[in-house]
Amino acid sequence: MAKNEFDIIKHYFAQQQLQRDDVALAIGDDCALVNVAADYSVAVSTDSLVAGTHFLADADPAAVAYKALASNLSDLAAMGATPAWVSLALTLPTIDEAWLAPFCHSFFELANQYNIQLIGGDTTKGPLSITLTVQGLVPRGQALTRSGAQVGDDVYVTGDLGDSAAGLALILQQQYCDQHLASTLIERHFKASPRVSVGEALRGIASAALDISDGVVADVKHIAARSNVAIEIEVEQLPLSAELLAFCDGERQQAQQLALSSGEEYELCFTASAANRDALKAALAHTNVKYTCIGKVKAGSGLSLLQFGKPLTWQLFGWDHFVVKDN
Amino acid sequence: MAKNEFDIIKHYFAQQQLQRDDVALAIGDDCALVNVAADYSVAVSTDSLVAGTHFLADADPAAVAYKALASNLSDLAAMGATPAWVSLALTLPTIDEAWLAPFCHSFFELANQYNIQLIGGDTTKGPLSITLTVQGLVPRGQALTRSGAQVGDDVYVTGDLGDSAAGLALILQQQYCDQHLASTLIERHFKASPRVSVGEALRGIASAALDISDGVVADVKHIAARSNVAIEIEVEQLPLSAELLAFCDGERQQAQQLALSSGEEYELCFTASAANRDALKAALAHTNVKYTCIGKVKAGSGLSLLQFGKPLTWQLFGWDHFVVKDN
Repeated sequence: MAKNEFDIIKHYFAQQQLQRDDVALAIGDDCALVNVAADYSVAVSTDSLVAGTHFLADADPAAVAYKALASNLSDLAAMGATPAWVSLALTLPTIDEAWLAPFCHSFFELANQYNIQLIGGDTTKGPLSITLTVQGLVPRGQALTRSGAQVGDDVYVTGDLGDSAAGLALILQQQYCDQHLASTLIERHFKASPRVSVGEALRGIASAALDISDGVVADVKHIAARSNVAIEIEVEQLPLSAELLAFCDGERQQAQQLALSSGEEYELCFTASAANRDALKAALAHTNVKYTCIGKVKAGSGLSLLQFGKPLTWQLFGWDHFVVKDN
Repeated sequence: MAKNEFDIIKHYFAQQQLQRDDVALAIGDDCALVNVAADYSVAVSTDSLVAGTHFLADADPAAVAYKALASNLSDLAAMGATPAWVSLALTLPTIDEAWLAPFCHSFFELANQYNIQLIGGDTTKGPLSITLTVQGLVPRGQALTRSGAQVGDDVYVTGDLGDSAAGLALILQQQYCDQHLASTLIERHFKASPRVSVGEALRGIASAALDISDGVVADVKHIAARSNVAIEIEVEQLPLSAELLAFCDGERQQAQQLALSSGEEYELCFTASAANRDALKAALAHTNVKYTCIGKVKAGSGLSLLQFGKPLTWQLFGWDHFVVKDN
């Protein structure tokens, strides 16, 4: 049976059960058509995952689909937006149904969980890559941006930091540890949960937010720059999992450095005024996601690392696929 | 001077002069934020261009940028939508400023012309490809879809057909002709005009529409299938340019076959009731785009080709990058 581009689309991508009321027209025309409720803004984000750069060409397609969608949902979470629609551009070397079937199953499982509908896309021939454009809805004026941090605010992160980097090191066989620990950390690399419910709960409470995709060190600098403030991080307050500490053989400094530089964490980093501490506690209680104060917003510019209140001079870099570091 | 991903984005992609009032937040945060006027729907389309599949890796970057954006604008035109916002996912093997500068110049020139603002995207390392997600606005209920064709409607196309295919054959050096003619046809392949003003003018007049991106034969079948009708095309009515006829050495049948199968034309094909002929003429007069009736909508299903009213049995295929034809 000949399979062409249209058959692929029809067979695999028109099968999502979720049908949102605000989608007037989904897959199958020149464009999708969606409607936006009055007094809402649309948050739009695009991310690409390229084989050989962001994942190994022989990676589990279900894991690739999860990571592609989760990383995009994380961008919506960082704006306080509720997921709504996604477009998928998939480039494949050949039509490989053994790859497509688990990819789609995993993609739709996560999409359904977050109530986001696939509304269109493109399927092309070429080196394996996935580009998603996700769209979410946020009440006008309530989006969380990077530019609102105020001097005196607390700096927080959700979850634990560094597990994703440890998992990646294990996948790339740059480091080894016992099998049970390895599978836990690898699972955390592949299966980070986008913090959508946290982002929604932070509307009206956080002053600035972003998701950690290039490492805390790199990402916090974006808040500092866009908000025209300085940020201090106390490394002893970084939330480290027991698994990360075990992976580092109890070397706390190594774990802290992984926590600071680990990309693809998909935890949220946000700032909030001290006056909002109670509101924050109440708002995040229902999300069952832990959050930790890791620093303070100060006057000035840039990022400083402190240990027990004293300046540190660790050289750390955010993740950048174009920059080769010599360390 | 070290250039990393952020420098590229800042330097090249944050330079568009056009700033739309409905863009609350553009490049530089986790998401862009856009606002939609009440009573409008948002039309969304995604298309990828992959080096080696859709263009040659050494193609002029300005031509690649034009083609990428024009083909996406054409999808908005086919829905009767007015262009608004675009997201750009660009995958590059290396940071090559000699490639990026003309790419961006060409991209923004066309974007400004159509009042579409770049609101975000992603820059990644890997095999050269471009994925755009464009968004446009259309009054609710007035979008042109593929599913509204009615028995008895006329079938129209804008412009001339086949020049793009002739240009491509010349680029690929599959055929030759005199230099002046060749440069005209190659220019038409690279510089097809998206028919945005036609699409807008067709709101409330056309019963169905799409843009010709896979060839008339393939695309018209989509209207027939989605509208549950049959479509007859009279090949003697196909609009052929003098340049295409010259390219075919006056072989009218070869020109007609090119016109029927040529992909990437970015002309619109639409249906409209005979009662709307005067309204159509009035609505399209200001666009300065010619349009031609090429057939009729009938009861039944599928596509029939006629020549002087008699059935033809030419074997023609739409363009599909995954299907290798043996002719």
